[in-house]
Amino acid sequence: MPQPLHTVHISPRNRLGRILWGLVNALCFRYTPRTAHAWRAWVLARFGAQMGRRCHVYAGARIWAPWNLTCEDDAAIADGAEIYNLAPVHLGVHSVVSQGAFLCTATHDMHDPAFPLQAASIRVERRGWVAARAVVMPGVTVGEGAVLGLAALATHDLPPWGVYAGVPARPVGVRRSH
Amino acid sequence: MPQPLHTVHISPRNRLGRILWGLVNALCFRYTPRTAHAWRAWVLARFGAQMGRRCHVYAGARIWAPWNLTCEDDAAIADGAEIYNLAPVHLGVHSVVSQGAFLCTATHDMHDPAFPLQAASIRVERRGWVAARAVVMPGVTVGEGAVLGLAALATHDLPPWGVYAGVPARPVGVRRSH
Amino acid sequence: MPQPLHTVHISPRNRLGRILWGLVNALCFRYTPRTAHAWRAWVLARFGAQMGRRCHVYAGARIWAPWNLTCEDDAAIADGAEIYNLAPVHLGVHSVVSQGAFLCTATHDMHDPAFPLQAASIRVERRGWVAARAVVMPGVTVGEGAVLGLAALATHDLPPWGVYAGVPARPVGVRRSH
Repeated sequence: MPQPLHTVHISPRNRLGRILWGLVNALCFRYTPRTAHAWRAWVLARFGAQMGRRCHVYAGARIWAPWNLTCEDDAAIADGAEIYNLAPVHLGVHSVVSQGAFLCTATHDMHDPAFPLQAASIRVERRGWVAARAVVMPGVTVGEGAVLGLAALATHDLPPWGVYAGVPARPVGVRRSH
Repeated sequence: MPQPLHTVHISPRNRLGRILWGLVNALCFRYTPRTAHAWRAWVLARFGAQMGRRCHVYAGARIWAPWNLTCEDDAAIADGAEIYNLAPVHLGVHSVVSQGAFLCTATHDMHDPAFPLQAASIRVERRGWVAARAVVMPGVTVGEGAVLGLAALATHDLPPWGVYAGVPARPVGVRRSH
Repeated sequence: MPQPLHTVHISPRNRLGRILWGLVNALCFRYTPRTAHAWRAWVLARFGAQMGRRCHVYAGARIWAPWNLTCEDDAAIADGAEIYNLAPVHLGVHSVVSQGAFLCTATHDMHDPAFPLQAASIRVERRGWVAARAVVMPGVTVGEGAVLGLAALATHDLPPWGVYAGVPARPVGVRRSH
């Protein structure tokens, strides 16, 4: 089951945090050397991210709110990947989010004329892989070892160790690396 | 019915206008504070955009030609959304174009060896919503209150108050906020 | 048949080359005038690209490794197009890669716990057209005159003079410009 959506109110504290993060990103993150993974993890942790060991968050990764990010050991976020985490995003051990992928935790309640902002958390479990330009909808869990293919869209939870492709993503194979 | 395609010739005046707009964008638009919506609307209007009241065009929105943009009251264009308006783009009252969406008015005549540039206008009617990373083809109208889902592709006009998803987009639901 | 995948090792020489290319890109490529195609082709050739005559590589094109790029006469790569060429990318005479398209030569062996990087070359043959935001998988050839539509995904070789759309791309028409 996907995580439930809840209404989000962006607090003044959140806005201030993102302004600070934007500044620090521009000065100390975005233009750092490719291999400075330990440095970038340290910077993210200063903004409240829970960072495991040996995480590879590349300099071109776009993270909306570090305080809503958890990366377990050896998790990776590629250049151009976008973590739009109004709700928490949890990346498991050895999980990978590839170039230009989009983990989208937020949406709007389209049935309410006030169009309120809503969000639900996203998880990529141990050894899950969100391939390049793939998109994950709010509340979805990419199961352990599951693969979401190039440019695919995950609209529902992806069971472990399957391979999923297309818009919306359907099962297309099984991964042989238990 | 989609709007018809017409052949486009990029005039020297258009090229000059885009060079100036590129400069002004870099100096007075792209790096403005998040909440400076009135300022950005004023800048767009200086370049010929028809801007209603309380429009929210975010600083990271990419607009090809402001003089081909009409935003009615309370229309919104998010960061990273791309308005590729060789032909006019019309955004209705309270319409929303979300992050990374792409309103693509232009194509080429693939059947002509000279591969001429062609364009057709795009409309998003009142309360229409083009969700994040969705793409709208040349000539398409997103009807009143219609929703084009995350990462979907609108290849035909979208009837009012429907919800459409997939590549190409198909009806998947109805919106309850008349 | 798609080109076969082979395991890729990123050598120190490759890393150094990309650092230099990144610097030269920032200083002499990315912010050059729109019409400076001859200049940009010359810069790419200095980094090992095989460049034909009258190529149009726009300033916002993103090329991972110029030394793995061949552009025949009159080939074009638009702004925001991404040539992720860990393996060679070959663009034929009068071929076009449009805005935001992604030629992705690399993947990982998902069945190997070590998750090794793999790559296979991509070709766009004479008069082939990869339209805006379309994605081409590793090893795929876009045949002579073939068209991959807006936001489509090519998972297999595309036969000549066909038109393909969707994720994954399916035949939807025939091109009349032999």
